Parts: sequence; structure tokens; C-alpha cells
Amino acid sequence: MTAAEPGHSTVPVIAGVDLGGTKIQAVVLRNEEVVGSARVLTPQTGDPGDVIDAIVETIRTSLEAARATEPDLGGIGIGTPGEVDAKAGAVLLAANVPGFSERVELGRLVSSQLGNANVTVGNDVNVGVLGEYERGAGRPYENLLGVWSGTGVGGGLIIEGQLYDGRGAAGEFGHLVVKPGGLHCSCGRRGCVEAYAGRVSMERRARQLVKRGQKTDLFHIMEKHERTRLSSGVFARALEQGDKMAKKLIAEAAWALGIGMASAQNLLDLEAIIVGGGLGDRLGQPFVDQIVEQMTPHLFAQEPPVVLGTELRDLSGAVGAAVLAGG
Amino acid sequence: MTAAEPGHSTVPVIAGVDLGGTKIQAVVLRNEEVVGSARVLTPQTGDPGDVIDAIVETIRTSLEAARATEPDLGGIGIGTPGEVDAKAGAVLLAANVPGFSERVELGRLVSSQLGNANVTVGNDVNVGVLGEYERGAGRPYENLLGVWSGTGVGGGLIIEGQLYDGRGAAGEFGHLVVKPGGLHCSCGRRGCVEAYAGRVSMERRARQLVKRGQKTDLFHIMEKHERTRLSSGVFARALEQGDKMAKKLIAEAAWALGIGMASAQNLLDLEAIIVGGGLGDRLGQPFVDQIVEQMTPHLFAQEPPVVLGTELRDLSGAVGAAVLAGG
Repeated sequence: MTAAEPGHSTVPVIAGVDLGGTKIQAVVLRNEEVVGSARVLTPQTGDPGDVIDAIVETIRTSLEAARATEPDLGGIGIGTPGEVDAKAGAVLLAANVPGFSERVELGRLVSSQLGNANVTVGNDVNVGVLGEYERGAGRPYENLLGVWSGTGVGGGLIIEGQLYDGRGAAGEFGHLVVKPGGLHCSCGRRGCVEAYAGRVSMERRARQLVKRGQKTDLFHIMEKHERTRLSSGVFARALEQGDKMAKKLIAEAAWALGIGMASAQNLLDLEAIIVGGGLGDRLGQPFVDQIVEQMTPHLFAQEPPVVLGTELRDLSGAVGAAVLAGG
Repeated sequence: MTAAEPGHSTVPVIAGVDLGGTKIQAVVLRNEEVVGSARVLTPQTGDPGDVIDAIVETIRTSLEAARATEPDLGGIGIGTPGEVDAKAGAVLLAANVPGFSERVELGRLVSSQLGNANVTVGNDVNVGVLGEYERGAGRPYENLLGVWSGTGVGGGLIIEGQLYDGRGAAGEFGHLVVKPGGLHCSCGRRGCVEAYAGRVSMERRARQLVKRGQKTDLFHIMEKHERTRLSSGVFARALEQGDKMAKKLIAEAAWALGIGMASAQNLLDLEAIIVGGGLGDRLGQPFVDQIVEQMTPHLFAQEPPVVLGTELRDLSGAVGAAVLAGG
């Protein structure tokens, strides 16, 4: 850290970034409070350099919003999809982020543009769950599972107050098997939670059902709102309009999430399960209630877990990334 | 601890007891080595006092075998089925142990007959897994799941080198849901691992298949060996004889265990999974291989867990109980 300049606060700030395939969300924390934030769309050029530049710019905008400058930066945390090489601060195979299908030295590249600040890189879902555990709905609990339902379905575990990552690949809640031989999953297997509760799978299934002659307003709503995908918002609007196919797909998602959560609960006897991700955040409490209804009949122990939506909503990831960096 | 008497070793011994519905196994450890053991059949009178007396006698016989006396006893550990009140050293609802269907002050009652030695009470499967972790097949690993397939199917978790019990009810691997709406389980639900891989469920299913006209030597072998239940040994002998129904039931058990283990692995990214319990120990490596074959196609991460049989075999529980008591 550089010495404080005249007129500057001596309290360092920590930046947190949630890198997604669609958007980049940054926050700046001072004394554990969000004092600035910014969001941009993820560049779709396919050049990883453009994504790095966008991350750096979003951090700079957040710093301005926080009335802080680069020398105040005590560290940066980044949550990213794909496989994370935490030691090197690199990411591999983040297929959803344009240009990130191969290894990207994320930490080093961002650091070099921001005064060589320390950059810590973590898995996007893990940092989201960490954010909720440290600063959100998970604060009262020491053992919890975060279930992030969005494009795919991810998970993150806090065990005895610590992020639990196994050998680096724990938390793949989306690939718990809920129906052997069931629907095809994007992982190439069948019957995973994600095959029923990930938006990519749900959209594929909706297109199949339309081909078979079933009616839905889902794609009409998608086009009306100038989307190219069945986003969480599209599903939410279709549900509001009473669209039958949307209802059916969301009910199936809740069923798969409920079965998977019951299995996880019977194995881990958790205090809490937090439902987040795009779909979880957008559909909110009614969706949580639907999942709980499916989960409860399969619980073995008498004491059920508390099941909650997120508190930080779409800032879980960015706040958690900042927490990872010491914020 | 009392002062050493002349001619006695000053090294204390620790007793461990595995209390089951059929048998009571005790061991005595000195310097972490098994130096004495004894086994008796569990009294079937329905009087809990008879079971307590049998536990005490079995410990005494083990002490004699270890050339130790009661004053040498540094502690006693007991693994029991049912719900454990660890603080009070009591057990509730151990329906399989005659007379133990209500609360039994197991620790206090055993202690009072053995010089008021400290008694620690734990869940039978958890202590079995602890035994394998500390002194058996699990020694090289810090994150592992024990899957105990016997009368029912239990599980125990070691997370970061510690027995993980959640709020007291973790490890119910037998009640992971592997086929929603599938076979009835003894817990009253459907499609649990135990509905396919617990001996009680497997026997019920065998009787149903016989009623439907299917042929098997299972019950013939059972009677020939003067058993009243389809024990693990009966299944093993039927398999050796190529009995089709036994093959089918064991294949279904391996399937359910494999699906459940894949889900647990995808969630926890464990280093190892240990397969124990009566069925696991009796059927050994061929059964482990069958389970691995079912599990592997559902694994998400590249690095699979090591899957092993137990090393202490039917002493896992008693040794683990002694470990729990400091042995």
C-alpha cells in the first residue's frame, strides 16, 4: 500500500468483481460496506483482452463511485466461471465468457493495469456463496449450501464456517443425479439437477416441446424484450401471464432442485440452504417455496434446514469476491 | 486414573465397543494397538439391563485377553445404532437392539459397573468410519465418505480430518434419493439408496419376487445355515452358486450405491470413499468394483475418488469407538 496522500482516507478499499458471460459487476468495499459499484455488459468480441479491459474499467468506475483512487486499492477479488487455478490467479475453460475458452492469466493481467494490486481469483458460485455467508442471508449459519440456479446450476458449501472446496471441484450440486436415465444434461450425462433446473437445458426443452406442437408465449416474450435467450426475466414474465409451459418447466426445475437438496441435506444435515443465481434471484420466494415443497417429503432427519433466497441479490458474487480479497 | 499397582503396566488401555442388534464386539487398545478383543451375541430378551451386562462382560473378557484389569481402563467408547445424545452418553430409538427402543443411559450404566470409567457414546456408523480413518483404509486421506451397507445403509463423513456430524444427523447416505418414486424404503419414503442396498429391503424384495413366481436358492441357503434372515453371508453364498435373483439384487444394490456415491462425490470432491458394513465387508472387492462401475459414468470432475473396502473389516466399529474415547 502506498502512503496516504493529503485529503485521502487512509482506510484501504477492496474491489470485488463478478465476471459473467453476459455482464461484469464490480463493487468497492470500505470497512465491509459497499461504497461504490458499477456494471457493464461483457464484451462479445471473443478477444480476452477486451474482457480484461472491461473488468479494469468497471473497477475504475466503482472506485470513482466510492470516491477512492487506485492507490487506495488494498486488493481485488474476481469470481469467474470455469476452472480456477487459484495459486496462479488464472482461469481455464470458462466457455461462457467470450475469449476465455482457454487459459487466461486473469489476476496478472488485471493487476498490471491497476498499480500491481493483489488479485485473488475464485470460482463464481463459491464467491457468491461466500458473499451470502459473510454479508448476506447466510450470516447466522456455520454449515450451509448455496444452490445457484442460472444458466447452469452451481453450488457452494460452507462447512464449519469455511468455504469447502474438496480438491478444488466440490459444490457441483448441478450434477447430483436426480433421475438416472432422465433428461440429457449439458455435461453429456443424464438426469442431473442441471438438466431440469439450468436455463440452457430448460430452453432446449422448451424448443423441443414447441416442435412437438405445444404452445407457449416464452419465445414471444423473449423477442418482445429483445432477448436472444430465455432469460430468468423471460421465465418470470411468462409465469406472471400464467403460461402453461413456463409453469411446467419451473415446476420441474423446483422438483429437481428439491430432490437434490433433500439428498444433500440427508448427507450433510445443514443449517441452511440458500437459493440464488439468476433464476433464484428473479423468481424469489414463490420459487423457494416451490422447491421446499418438493424437498421436504424426502428429508430424513426431523429438523429441516432453513431455506432462503439471497439477501445481496445480484451483488452476491461481487461482494463475495471482495470478501475473498480481504474486504 | 488410579495409580499403577505393582506388577502392572502404567500404560492405560482404552476399550471400544460396537453394539449391534445381532452381536456385541469389544476391543481393548494399548498404544493404539488392538491387544484384546471379544464378541458375544446380543441378548434378545428385550431387557436393556441384559444388554448392558453383556457389554460389560464383553469388555471384561477383552481386558483379560489384553492382560489388563479394570483399574488400567483409561476410557471406554461405545458405538451404537439409534440417535445418540453424546453429551449425556445416552441413546434413543435404537430399534434394532432389543430393549433399546426408548432412551437408555448407556454411558452411565456401563460406567457404574466398570469403576466409573469415562464412557463416550457415538453413532455406530460414524465410529466405524472414524476407525477406518484413524487406523484403517482411510489413513492417507483427509476428506472421505464411509458407506456402510448392512441391515440398512449408513454413512459417515470425515471433512478436513474431522468427523463431520452437522447438527447431529449428518451422514444419512442411505437416504439420498436415487430414484424418485422408486422402491419403498424402511424410512417410509421411496427411492432411497437403502431401499435398494439395505439387507432388510433386499430381503423384502426377494420375498416379493418369490411370491411373483421367481426362483431363488436364497431362502434355501438361509435355512441350511440356520439363519432367520438373508444375512450378508447368505447373499455371498448365493452369488457363489450363481443364483440369478441374488445377482439381480446385488446388482441393484451396487447401482443405487453407485448413483448415491456419484452424487456425494460431485457435491464434496472427496479423496476417498470406503465401502463397509456387513454386506460391504462380506462381498469385498468384487462388490466394490461393481459399485465403481455404476458410479463412474456419473462423476463430473476429472479426478475420481479412490474407492476402497475396509481394512479393519468387522472391527472398524469397535476400534473406532476406542479411538473416540482417546484410544
